[in-house]
Amino acid sequence: MRLRLTVAYDGTQFSGWQSQPDGDTVQDALEGVFKKLTGTKTAVHGAGRTDAGVHALAQTAHADVARTDLSMEGWMRALNANLPPGVRVLGVRRTRSDFHARYDARGKIYRYAVWNGPVRPPLERDRAWHVIPKIDPVRLAQACELFVGRHDFFAFSVRRTKEPFDSFRTIHSIKTRHTGPRLTLTFTGDGFLYKMIRILSAAAVRCATGKADLEDLRKRLTDRQPVFHHVAPAEGLCLVRVLYR
Amino acid sequence: MRLRLTVAYDGTQFSGWQSQPDGDTVQDALEGVFKKLTGTKTAVHGAGRTDAGVHALAQTAHADVARTDLSMEGWMRALNANLPPGVRVLGVRRTRSDFHARYDARGKIYRYAVWNGPVRPPLERDRAWHVIPKIDPVRLAQACELFVGRHDFFAFSVRRTKEPFDSFRTIHSIKTRHTGPRLTLTFTGDGFLYKMIRILSAAAVRCATGKADLEDLRKRLTDRQPVFHHVAPAEGLCLVRVLYR
Repeated sequence: MRLRLTVAYDGTQFSGWQSQPDGDTVQDALEGVFKKLTGTKTAVHGAGRTDAGVHALAQTAHADVARTDLSMEGWMRALNANLPPGVRVLGVRRTRSDFHARYDARGKIYRYAVWNGPVRPPLERDRAWHVIPKIDPVRLAQACELFVGRHDFFAFSVRRTKEPFDSFRTIHSIKTRHTGPRLTLTFTGDGFLYKMIRILSAAAVRCATGKADLEDLRKRLTDRQPVFHHVAPAEGLCLVRVLYR
Repeated sequence: MRLRLTVAYDGTQFSGWQSQPDGDTVQDALEGVFKKLTGTKTAVHGAGRTDAGVHALAQTAHADVARTDLSMEGWMRALNANLPPGVRVLGVRRTRSDFHARYDARGKIYRYAVWNGPVRPPLERDRAWHVIPKIDPVRLAQACELFVGRHDFFAFSVRRTKEPFDSFRTIHSIKTRHTGPRLTLTFTGDGFLYKMIRILSAAAVRCATGKADLEDLRKRLTDRQPVFHHVAPAEGLCLVRVLYR
């Protein structure tokens, strides 16, 4: 039986989503609990990897289990009772046997948070990038506008492999919102390259503080180079939701 | 020279505001840094004590310093450079020599946060009280309405002393706000008794989940008894602002 899970986590507690030798990841935590509950090694497939420090309000994952004595509510309780407090399963439901959290995903929503002021309050410490120079909202919107649509984001990502790869992605929207000194960029797109949102956030913010040039960003988007080297910190990023048909 | 400080802190990092023998409080942290910067034991007076786990967006405090070589901006930088990351000074200004953070305060704004759903996400863990039974917003508003005004809140506080004390306080407003499963109660009043907001929050929420009775609460407010024994957890409480003339 295939289970579909909705998972939330505090990224500061883990070395990212994906399983690692030291076992200190969200996937490791989930797989460890499934093994405890079922007696069998169980793979938990997430819709996407998130890096160390990146949070999730609703990551989607799937896992196959043979145990049939638990209701969906029962699975949720049993998982949460055994997981560390930094990760919670918000929902469990039975899904079709060929559902795949990653391959079936049609898009994702990520939110990047910035604290724009001289001092970042302690409650924002692990949740927002601290940017001291004043962010110009007009220039921020202009940079975001530049990124919306189907583009080759090669210059705004980090290569994970030496193999050639498809670096075209479609960003449906980037919504900016201000609440006092707190600012968020909400990205909706069909998918994102490695570190792409953190690089785009850094590019847009640097443009809005006068440290990067809009024309220069536009050029990198058409010429695939030079690669933009600034990566906004992981603590500001949160996976909001995974989109399916 | 008297300095007036605006201080924010993450309550989970400290054993409350007020100085303690083990030194693990916000006041101890601030006094320790002032001693380091001035070479003199310096008392830091806060507008009010907050308990362990209670957060602050903007506590107000004052302190007297003899050092005159630092600008207000310089004091802020020097304090923040030496404080632990769980506490930040958001502002420093010079104030009149008879200003007193506590005695001059005319009121305070506190916010109590509740997560009303089956599972509390990890990012809300130290920031909201987890309440599983469904909260009825109409009953919640009715209970809050009951508390607004000038009342004897004896039954909704914890005695800190055996001496008789004035338990009359005026609550100017209690505003409730829902954002999905997150709910906040924002209290504005001339002052609050020990644990009063956590008890009023517990009373209103229990009323809204059918575990307490509105008439019973009304009776305790007029009769000063029996004392309401439920205290909502510290993690949901945040001192938003201290009000002065």
